[in-house]
Amino acid sequence: VDPCVPGTGWGVLHGLYTIDRARLADEPGLAKRVEDAVSALEADGHQVICFAVLGHKAEFGVVAVGPDLARLHQFQQELRAAPLVPVFGYVSLTEHSEYTSTEADERARLAAQGVAGAPLDDALEQWRARMETYLEHRLHPQLPTRRFVCFYPMSKRREGADNWYALSFDERRHFMQGHARVGRTYAGRVVQLITGSTGLDDWEWGVTLFADDPLAIKEIVYEMRFDEVSARFAEFGPFFTGLVGAPAEVLASVLASS
Amino acid sequence: VDPCVPGTGWGVLHGLYTIDRARLADEPGLAKRVEDAVSALEADGHQVICFAVLGHKAEFGVVAVGPDLARLHQFQQELRAAPLVPVFGYVSLTEHSEYTSTEADERARLAAQGVAGAPLDDALEQWRARMETYLEHRLHPQLPTRRFVCFYPMSKRREGADNWYALSFDERRHFMQGHARVGRTYAGRVVQLITGSTGLDDWEWGVTLFADDPLAIKEIVYEMRFDEVSARFAEFGPFFTGLVGAPAEVLASVLASS
Amino acid sequence: VDPCVPGTGWGVLHGLYTIDRARLADEPGLAKRVEDAVSALEADGHQVICFAVLGHKAEFGVVAVGPDLARLHQFQQELRAAPLVPVFGYVSLTEHSEYTSTEADERARLAAQGVAGAPLDDALEQWRARMETYLEHRLHPQLPTRRFVCFYPMSKRREGADNWYALSFDERRHFMQGHARVGRTYAGRVVQLITGSTGLDDWEWGVTLFADDPLAIKEIVYEMRFDEVSARFAEFGPFFTGLVGAPAEVLASVLASS
Amino acid sequence: VDPCVPGTGWGVLHGLYTIDRARLADEPGLAKRVEDAVSALEADGHQVICFAVLGHKAEFGVVAVGPDLARLHQFQQELRAAPLVPVFGYVSLTEHSEYTSTEADERARLAAQGVAGAPLDDALEQWRARMETYLEHRLHPQLPTRRFVCFYPMSKRREGADNWYALSFDERRHFMQGHARVGRTYAGRVVQLITGSTGLDDWEWGVTLFADDPLAIKEIVYEMRFDEVSARFAEFGPFFTGLVGAPAEVLASVLASS
Amino acid sequence: VDPCVPGTGWGVLHGLYTIDRARLADEPGLAKRVEDAVSALEADGHQVICFAVLGHKAEFGVVAVGPDLARLHQFQQELRAAPLVPVFGYVSLTEHSEYTSTEADERARLAAQGVAGAPLDDALEQWRARMETYLEHRLHPQLPTRRFVCFYPMSKRREGADNWYALSFDERRHFMQGHARVGRTYAGRVVQLITGSTGLDDWEWGVTLFADDPLAIKEIVYEMRFDEVSARFAEFGPFFTGLVGAPAEVLASVLASS
Repeated sequence: VDPCVPGTGWGVLHGLYTIDRARLADEPGLAKRVEDAVSALEADGHQVICFAVLGHKAEFGVVAVGPDLARLHQFQQELRAAPLVPVFGYVSLTEHSEYTSTEADERARLAAQGVAGAPLDDALEQWRARMETYLEHRLHPQLPTRRFVCFYPMSKRREGADNWYALSFDERRHFMQGHARVGRTYAGRVVQLITGSTGLDDWEWGVTLFADDPLAIKEIVYEMRFDEVSARFAEFGPFFTGLVGAPAEVLASVLASS
Repeated sequence: VDPCVPGTGWGVLHGLYTIDRARLADEPGLAKRVEDAVSALEADGHQVICFAVLGHKAEFGVVAVGPDLARLHQFQQELRAAPLVPVFGYVSLTEHSEYTSTEADERARLAAQGVAGAPLDDALEQWRARMETYLEHRLHPQLPTRRFVCFYPMSKRREGADNWYALSFDERRHFMQGHARVGRTYAGRVVQLITGSTGLDDWEWGVTLFADDPLAIKEIVYEMRFDEVSARFAEFGPFFTGLVGAPAEVLASVLASS
Repeated sequence: VDPCVPGTGWGVLHGLYTIDRARLADEPGLAKRVEDAVSALEADGHQVICFAVLGHKAEFGVVAVGPDLARLHQFQQELRAAPLVPVFGYVSLTEHSEYTSTEADERARLAAQGVAGAPLDDALEQWRARMETYLEHRLHPQLPTRRFVCFYPMSKRREGADNWYALSFDERRHFMQGHARVGRTYAGRVVQLITGSTGLDDWEWGVTLFADDPLAIKEIVYEMRFDEVSARFAEFGPFFTGLVGAPAEVLASVLASS
Repeated sequence: VDPCVPGTGWGVLHGLYTIDRARLADEPGLAKRVEDAVSALEADGHQVICFAVLGHKAEFGVVAVGPDLARLHQFQQELRAAPLVPVFGYVSLTEHSEYTSTEADERARLAAQGVAGAPLDDALEQWRARMETYLEHRLHPQLPTRRFVCFYPMSKRREGADNWYALSFDERRHFMQGHARVGRTYAGRVVQLITGSTGLDDWEWGVTLFADDPLAIKEIVYEMRFDEVSARFAEFGPFFTGLVGAPAEVLASVLASS
Repeated sequence: VDPCVPGTGWGVLHGLYTIDRARLADEPGLAKRVEDAVSALEADGHQVICFAVLGHKAEFGVVAVGPDLARLHQFQQELRAAPLVPVFGYVSLTEHSEYTSTEADERARLAAQGVAGAPLDDALEQWRARMETYLEHRLHPQLPTRRFVCFYPMSKRREGADNWYALSFDERRHFMQGHARVGRTYAGRVVQLITGSTGLDDWEWGVTLFADDPLAIKEIVYEMRFDEVSARFAEFGPFFTGLVGAPAEVLASVLASS
């Protein structure tokens, strides 16, 4: 299978697993096997986050991000061949937001403040640089190191009067910018990774939240639910939450009493 | 994995299990193993309730509450390594209610009764103390000892004209206070533990009810269903009910004929 | 685990099982084991109906009714320890109907017929006796002996304009009395056992119908579906139907070719 | 278990199975076992159709029809004891349509054509004979021999403005007669078996279609979907399609490479 | 079982599998077995695409297309007998679109441009030839060779005001032609195979998209979702995406670490 490099963004695979304890007895090196697969994938220029899952739905989770879908597929199969039982997973691509503000917006905003001439040009130059950094980070994110992670897929609703895809671009942009404002109030406390999966998996987006304090995750998702864009238009898939760590550390905690 | 201590509330794990009877023959010490895991978790400052589940969905259930999510995760993995098959579970945090009455409410209520001056100050002082006790108990509850337990997760509906998250705070508070009034009529008969899970698990809240008489559980849930907040806005997950006891006692009844 | 005796009604457990044929070879005494468990439960003052299930969802079914939930739990675990795989089940309590006619209704009805004085007192005396018998039978039913049984759980709908729990008591009573009228036309052909499960299991009621002729089951459920209370307000769970018999007879037919 | 003979119609069991290939090695005589069970059921006055299922949901399917539900249950258990894993099934009874035209309809139709006196009596005599044959065939059908079969269960919708059970009999009859007209245009190409299951299984009817050409199945179901009775009121369960043949032939094709 | 040749179109089977790793140890020749089954099916005049699935839902996928449903069934059973566990699949037939433009449309379009007489006859002659090629390709497609494949089943919605089957033919045609316009803007980047399954499987159509770049799949499905025909009328089943290759290559990548 030839490598499939997505045009501009990166591929993202989420994997949630339980441990096949019947096989563990005969194949004891699970932690080593996962560590090696993670190290090899990182050595090939991809990033991996491992976590110990809270609750009954899974025990071990990974988020793997990088340029080469075929390489990510190889990693996926390495985990599948280990004594791990996949119980959920997700396929998505990093993407730009289509609702970010435009240079025309920024120019109008500055003009309204009376900025003109060379200062305007300078300000727009800085805006372009900031935006470029932001967009580059959306397409090629650096996964953060936080103690707690939450993943859930979601779609926009298409029902009766609450049909996201029947709204105009301006209406959608208006809703999404309100959403972004709430998100910014959690800057520092919660890091968001939003990836696109329309046509690739069963929901339209994957949301991965990182925080040191699980309360911050609960607060941001709860507060956003009152946002019209969530209240009227969001459909959520299953939520997975876990404690992040190095692969060996995570598997040690998962396998502690086995 | 570093311990993750939630900001103010405690972590809560519900676990529902069937017995892996094929493994029981080779690993007979299940009751001892569960007892030890429970004792160790309690010794580390957490609380645990065990119950024998009625119906086909599970056989054995636990509710574990305490300050340290990583420690609760360790307990979860200890049970998973035993001959128990997790069939449902829940991850939540204890939390304050956002709809409790405020000092301004209380002051207005007292003023309407003609209370003023020093008596008003005294009354408010007492109100603050009561409220502090109440809020402390919401965040750091003492699990009660009752013979019967019921657990179910729930969310607020977001559909057409019945969209909880599109209501104003005052509307929601009004609905919730009516709900609380029904709850108070069961004081003594039913103890409620309401924990929050938005962003942490698939539903928004976990409801755990404790009573000596299962009829009290049936009556409170039935009566509340006529409340507008339930009639129009509640979506319920699966219900689990069981007979509470000490771990050894519960497992003895579960394993009686094995 | 202490016995939990429900306040006034009895506990009811429905159990639906497939046969674990892999275990049958090593543990051949399944029929004897079930017979013994049933006999012991009956000896302890409970009633049990056994049936051979039609269709793929299960093979063997039981309905167990009686005063002691802990004793019913013991029976449940005895079956679970046998080579039976539980595939569905239900937890409920017998209950009064809240919509039966009142003495005031009866008095008004008689007065409208011109009954007064001593004859009225006599008629009301008889009405009270009949009602007492009826209510006693609701709380402490005698399971009938019919050749065919049907079980399904159901809830009342809470959606938009079809929200049962937003109706007034009088509206609900009006709907339910129409429903009861249809039921009475099947008196003798179909025996109904309606038990309550709000807060105890995933649906609000369990419906168990007994008849000698399966056509009577089909006809009563079909006819009632046109009743407004079913047409607009009923949500149905899975239906299980079976051929009733003594435990040994049922298991002989279930295991015939094994 | 006593035989349960439905009042007027016949019992119908659909069964869909995958092959338990692990057991096949030790129990090689699957084809013979199924053949014997089918022959014995046919010898007892019942009819059986076998088919090889297309797609992943099942591998082998049967439709068994006849007067004795207990005998059909015995057949069901014979297949279950073989290395077959039931994945879906259905319990129903043959039934009259309640929406067929009445003698009064026919008399009015003829009268409108000027038919009167003895010719009218003759025509009605013939109509009664045709109708008797038709109704007899509905209750006691002869399963046809076609190369292709399709089965799906369905219910009538009960939602908001699209509530079948809130319509009057005349409205329902009007809708159903339009439906029947479409069906008649496929006479010869598609044979329909409609059986009733309200109160017996999870849906209200079972639809079994027989044709030599799968395209005819696709066309009739697609065309009927535009009928108001389907467009507004039909809810469909899973569809199973297969290639019909003698039991030995079907099992040979199913087991070809095992 | 006699071969069932669909009237005009071809049969299409999609199959999604996980690997039965427990059986792999004893039956190591999986890749060879699949290769042989694919070669034999191709030798019999059918086409097959193999792919390595991304995500947890499956590992190996095939799309098989050709004239003989019984031969496709044989292939299906050859894969089922191998150490593969079918987790999803789909049964459909190739079909014409009913909404293509007609000769009358084309004639009117040309007439509006002033084309008449012999040039009109020539243009229509060419239109008929193009249309014949197009329709022939719809019924007897050549599966393309692209590196990435996406499959999902879908139905048209039948709910309240969004009921596709209650629309007139002209309304549906109008909606579908807008949809086709979006599709044409992806000509070259994305190849679509739309097959019909009403009455054959649980959804009404199967959509298989081929592209070299997964981003093209994501973009076309996302853009089409804003089309009224998708926004208001589309219901989607599960999405499966994979990396296409020769059977040996695909299985080598799937089994890499086993």
